[in-house]
Amino acid sequence: MRGFGMRSVGNIGWLEKPEPQCGPLDAIVRPTIVAPCTSDVRVAQGWASPRTDRILGHEAVGEVVEVGELVTRFRPGDLVAVPCVTPDWLAPGVQRPRTIGHDTEEEGSFKFVGYKDGVMAELAHVNQADANLALIPDGVTPEAALMATDMMPTGLRGAEAADISFGETVVVIGIGPVGLMAVAGSVLRGAGRVVAVGGRDVTCDLALEYGATETVRHAGRSADDLASRIRQCVSEVDKVIVAGGDAAALATAVRIVKAGGVVSNINFYDQAASLTMPLVDWGLGMADKDIRGSFCPGGGAQLGRLLELIKHGRVDPTKLITHKLKGFDALPEAFDLMAEKPPDLIKPIVYL
Amino acid sequence: MRGFGMRSVGNIGWLEKPEPQCGPLDAIVRPTIVAPCTSDVRVAQGWASPRTDRILGHEAVGEVVEVGELVTRFRPGDLVAVPCVTPDWLAPGVQRPRTIGHDTEEEGSFKFVGYKDGVMAELAHVNQADANLALIPDGVTPEAALMATDMMPTGLRGAEAADISFGETVVVIGIGPVGLMAVAGSVLRGAGRVVAVGGRDVTCDLALEYGATETVRHAGRSADDLASRIRQCVSEVDKVIVAGGDAAALATAVRIVKAGGVVSNINFYDQAASLTMPLVDWGLGMADKDIRGSFCPGGGAQLGRLLELIKHGRVDPTKLITHKLKGFDALPEAFDLMAEKPPDLIKPIVYL
Amino acid sequence: MRGFGMRSVGNIGWLEKPEPQCGPLDAIVRPTIVAPCTSDVRVAQGWASPRTDRILGHEAVGEVVEVGELVTRFRPGDLVAVPCVTPDWLAPGVQRPRTIGHDTEEEGSFKFVGYKDGVMAELAHVNQADANLALIPDGVTPEAALMATDMMPTGLRGAEAADISFGETVVVIGIGPVGLMAVAGSVLRGAGRVVAVGGRDVTCDLALEYGATETVRHAGRSADDLASRIRQCVSEVDKVIVAGGDAAALATAVRIVKAGGVVSNINFYDQAASLTMPLVDWGLGMADKDIRGSFCPGGGAQLGRLLELIKHGRVDPTKLITHKLKGFDALPEAFDLMAEKPPDLIKPIVYL
Amino acid sequence: MRGFGMRSVGNIGWLEKPEPQCGPLDAIVRPTIVAPCTSDVRVAQGWASPRTDRILGHEAVGEVVEVGELVTRFRPGDLVAVPCVTPDWLAPGVQRPRTIGHDTEEEGSFKFVGYKDGVMAELAHVNQADANLALIPDGVTPEAALMATDMMPTGLRGAEAADISFGETVVVIGIGPVGLMAVAGSVLRGAGRVVAVGGRDVTCDLALEYGATETVRHAGRSADDLASRIRQCVSEVDKVIVAGGDAAALATAVRIVKAGGVVSNINFYDQAASLTMPLVDWGLGMADKDIRGSFCPGGGAQLGRLLELIKHGRVDPTKLITHKLKGFDALPEAFDLMAEKPPDLIKPIVYL
Repeated sequence: MRGFGMRSVGNIGWLEKPEPQCGPLDAIVRPTIVAPCTSDVRVAQGWASPRTDRILGHEAVGEVVEVGELVTRFRPGDLVAVPCVTPDWLAPGVQRPRTIGHDTEEEGSFKFVGYKDGVMAELAHVNQADANLALIPDGVTPEAALMATDMMPTGLRGAEAADISFGETVVVIGIGPVGLMAVAGSVLRGAGRVVAVGGRDVTCDLALEYGATETVRHAGRSADDLASRIRQCVSEVDKVIVAGGDAAALATAVRIVKAGGVVSNINFYDQAASLTMPLVDWGLGMADKDIRGSFCPGGGAQLGRLLELIKHGRVDPTKLITHKLKGFDALPEAFDLMAEKPPDLIKPIVYL
Repeated sequence: MRGFGMRSVGNIGWLEKPEPQCGPLDAIVRPTIVAPCTSDVRVAQGWASPRTDRILGHEAVGEVVEVGELVTRFRPGDLVAVPCVTPDWLAPGVQRPRTIGHDTEEEGSFKFVGYKDGVMAELAHVNQADANLALIPDGVTPEAALMATDMMPTGLRGAEAADISFGETVVVIGIGPVGLMAVAGSVLRGAGRVVAVGGRDVTCDLALEYGATETVRHAGRSADDLASRIRQCVSEVDKVIVAGGDAAALATAVRIVKAGGVVSNINFYDQAASLTMPLVDWGLGMADKDIRGSFCPGGGAQLGRLLELIKHGRVDPTKLITHKLKGFDALPEAFDLMAEKPPDLIKPIVYL
Repeated sequence: MRGFGMRSVGNIGWLEKPEPQCGPLDAIVRPTIVAPCTSDVRVAQGWASPRTDRILGHEAVGEVVEVGELVTRFRPGDLVAVPCVTPDWLAPGVQRPRTIGHDTEEEGSFKFVGYKDGVMAELAHVNQADANLALIPDGVTPEAALMATDMMPTGLRGAEAADISFGETVVVIGIGPVGLMAVAGSVLRGAGRVVAVGGRDVTCDLALEYGATETVRHAGRSADDLASRIRQCVSEVDKVIVAGGDAAALATAVRIVKAGGVVSNINFYDQAASLTMPLVDWGLGMADKDIRGSFCPGGGAQLGRLLELIKHGRVDPTKLITHKLKGFDALPEAFDLMAEKPPDLIKPIVYL
Repeated sequence: MRGFGMRSVGNIGWLEKPEPQCGPLDAIVRPTIVAPCTSDVRVAQGWASPRTDRILGHEAVGEVVEVGELVTRFRPGDLVAVPCVTPDWLAPGVQRPRTIGHDTEEEGSFKFVGYKDGVMAELAHVNQADANLALIPDGVTPEAALMATDMMPTGLRGAEAADISFGETVVVIGIGPVGLMAVAGSVLRGAGRVVAVGGRDVTCDLALEYGATETVRHAGRSADDLASRIRQCVSEVDKVIVAGGDAAALATAVRIVKAGGVVSNINFYDQAASLTMPLVDWGLGMADKDIRGSFCPGGGAQLGRLLELIKHGRVDPTKLITHKLKGFDALPEAFDLMAEKPPDLIKPIVYL
């Protein structure tokens, strides 16, 4: 079958691979809409461990075409959303209250990026279908469900890990699609003032629509300058969510958050970066500023709850979609868009 | 000075009392708008320990007229909101992470109801002003701030204690003004489906406006019947907030909540009631259903954060206000309204 | 094969049943030591839904004799401990941070008691072996591991749910084997003073050995009298764990715990009981006293961590074992011991 | 009066200062035993903001000699322990569940080091005595109480913030007196295996006595080498507490902790240090490894609970005391000991 991905680091294109086999607990899904993600681009650029001959893509909705003989909750023909994180729920690591979804090693359950072929393909394999798929309910469009496979859970997890209390002031640094969902998620956790730090009109405008009370431009500012600018806006910052930017973004976050506050990171850094903690701003270790490094929660039940949020009108993630492309052959163009991020782009999707 | 309250259990009316004295940490506030509360009515009826010669009322905004010599953050002329719970922040009991605001014994920090004269008076005494008052910021009306002194913190606390995750289904039983704020609070914590159980058109309509996805009428239903009716609506209830009703309401809540769920109580029961737990529905003790009995969090900083929520448009509590009365002499009428609850009443306020 | 259990409510004895079949994810274990539990006795007496022709028993260590073809972490010959709660980890219900191990309905994952044949048999079936078995590590005796299948996780869960902070005062009501583990667990969460409420010398003595600072006898006391007696001992009770007693035990707990405290229930009540909440002591709903109804956490990873506690000498659960019986034919005698609870009994075990 | 402290950065010695004045909420305490702390040494060396003419010392027990007219819980003659962190409990910042004790800015409530004269003096001023002092109960020696003013709360807070579940594996890096209390605290939160990383026989031996299961020497190892050495010991590390070392200690902690784990920092870093996060080990931001920067909780109620722990024999912090000096004039020698850390020193105390 045909898929789009990386032949090796820096070398992307079409791949021809055998069709995936369906194990007894698994499902085979035919993706109908997919969305490339910045992390696909970065993996192709070699940010994580180098991979070869790997189909990319981890955001998809589609139709179930086959299920294993032990699968009881899904059957061929079901319209489903596939979460980007699909843990092995029988691994010991998942039996932990704090970190639903880690199965083995770091990002081990982020299988489509790390460990197997992804969803930008004619067919995709989903491990443990009963636990890792979600039916798309009435009242939720496939496009909205697609946004619930990665953009929404990652952004909302950022807000959840920030441990927001009613009325607190939250700063979101980086407002690509994940950061925009962190803005919406902060409002949905009860934040009062929400300051969105971004670089483009299109994202700043949407941040305001999702409930940000003001926006700050980061373009051309040094970390010190940015921190000062944010502090001019808000005298006390309870929580910061870092959803974009380079290593300086984390340093800025630690600097501006109040003693006793939380920095919630959902950003993915270049491994070549050097992330230096601002020691004085961290109170030489004693300012009680937590730095939480979150990870998108996995599994179908979690995704199903996000679909409920959409169904009941709490948030409309389809506003993220700025570009709709048609046909399998449009995958390279969509991938390029994500890599180049033109001024009007937030998130492209491709109807296969 | 003149105040309105209880001479003894069942005997309410005007009281003439000496003006309150301002201790070094305290403030004297002249209430400008007050709101009677169902708990005032119940205390007057003798639900809690009997009191005599006590001015009632614990919801007020007003003007600071005097501050003690150790007060640094407020001064005469400040327009402030007075929280209904005003802890002694120097008592050992408040130094606990789980229960901000309990100072000594049960409800010890709910001083206006339990331990001293209330705010339906020409002047009111506020202990530890620096910690227990909040300035009304620009962009917040006094009426909105008034709703943030008890209705909003109690309702939102119910939602907070329910420990709602994104997309969960929440049932709110009892949608007087506190329950309506629990509906709004559930939405602000990220609930998906929200079922409001009420008895009157006026509250059911406002529940939908605050984000309930459907309403169920309790009128004339037995506990069993009500539980069945709710379960017809929703197959799985993650969290229940009990904000009204008699002892059967709690039993209904325990019955309908899922194993592993939470019942968050912010209801005030008649001490004559007999509250029987439905043992089988509680899994004979093993269904992992928590029953949390919350209490309105106290203090000025907490109130200040709620005012931020209002200021930034996250919730408009003034929709609760159905009746506006003018003048000190209208206090008895407002109190009677709260006692009789005519069909069109949610919350009356009185401009003094 | 032969097993010991209930033919119907009130009718216990030997059962002859077909050998269990091993599904692809499962294991068949030959129990080598088992322990009857009070809940076996109660199920046989009809406390829960009536069952017929059911082998009882849910505490076992044994040898793996067969594994399904999808099992990767265990193989025949492994010496394992079998947790009493064995969830279906692919069910949506387990993907929740708060309640690791609930799979479907109430107690749905407590399969050996509720839904299938138990371990007092020649062979026992374990669902999802990779997730639900634990190897017994070097340095842990089989007898100690046996105590980690139910007594220890249930008792320790009671302490965990009580949310004990360093130095707090904890009262444990009911000190059978689970309550004794709640005493040990309270000490292992950092409790200061620990008051154990029991009825027999043998359990009171062992409570002191596990770290209780004093004991109170409940025998012959009314709920009021017991509450007064405990309050004489300790002026302020931060947390209460209820691990035994009738419905009055819960009422006593709610009475004695401080405002802002927690009552953690791990007791299993007679469904014929009437559990009346002491409303005044619950502050008419507003005393901020949480009542948490816990459930033994399930799965092999959880059990494995308890075996680490034993291995490193943090607690010795074998002190619970007062009676050691030999041979399959001793099962009825062990069961009778658990039903009759002679003065010197805490926990009997049977070597098969 | 006479005190010992810093005239300016790098210049320590005797100071002659006026006696402290007692405000209405305050107390004046005559220290009877004090202990110098590494942070006194570091402040004198200029690690934090430069101070001049400041008496040092923040660990003391003593006798109350005067109380303000609003103090109700203490009186002259009381034997008390003075916590190192003495918040202003009327400041808005303390009304937060997550961070009991922060009043204003970073470390603002760590007044004895940062904002006023310390306890190595003839008299010491304690703000808000009712909230910030603790009586030494019967059964607790003054020496033990002295260890509960900073060493014990800081170490135990490190364990608490590490969010240890029963049976987890904890590594403590740096086992000076605070790190040793973190070892004891980990055991008291239910850790299974506890690996202590230290550099001297005296501390390694005491770590084993406090419940460490093994020790690792850091001396002469690079960060990489140390991480490898610890990983040889333990294949999976659930939680790490950093209680000493330079910036490399934090990097080592992030490296060795499992995905989904927590690094709990209670170390105080040199502001000249450069703290570089190991990005790859942090999963490029996505490994779900929290880095919590704790701060010693303040106040008398917290200290009182630690005294309960000591009283009931849960931990004996007097084992930390290796050197006992007599007389006011011994303060410089004690301070030098803390600065030079001879091989046999853990903690010196001085009887004034």
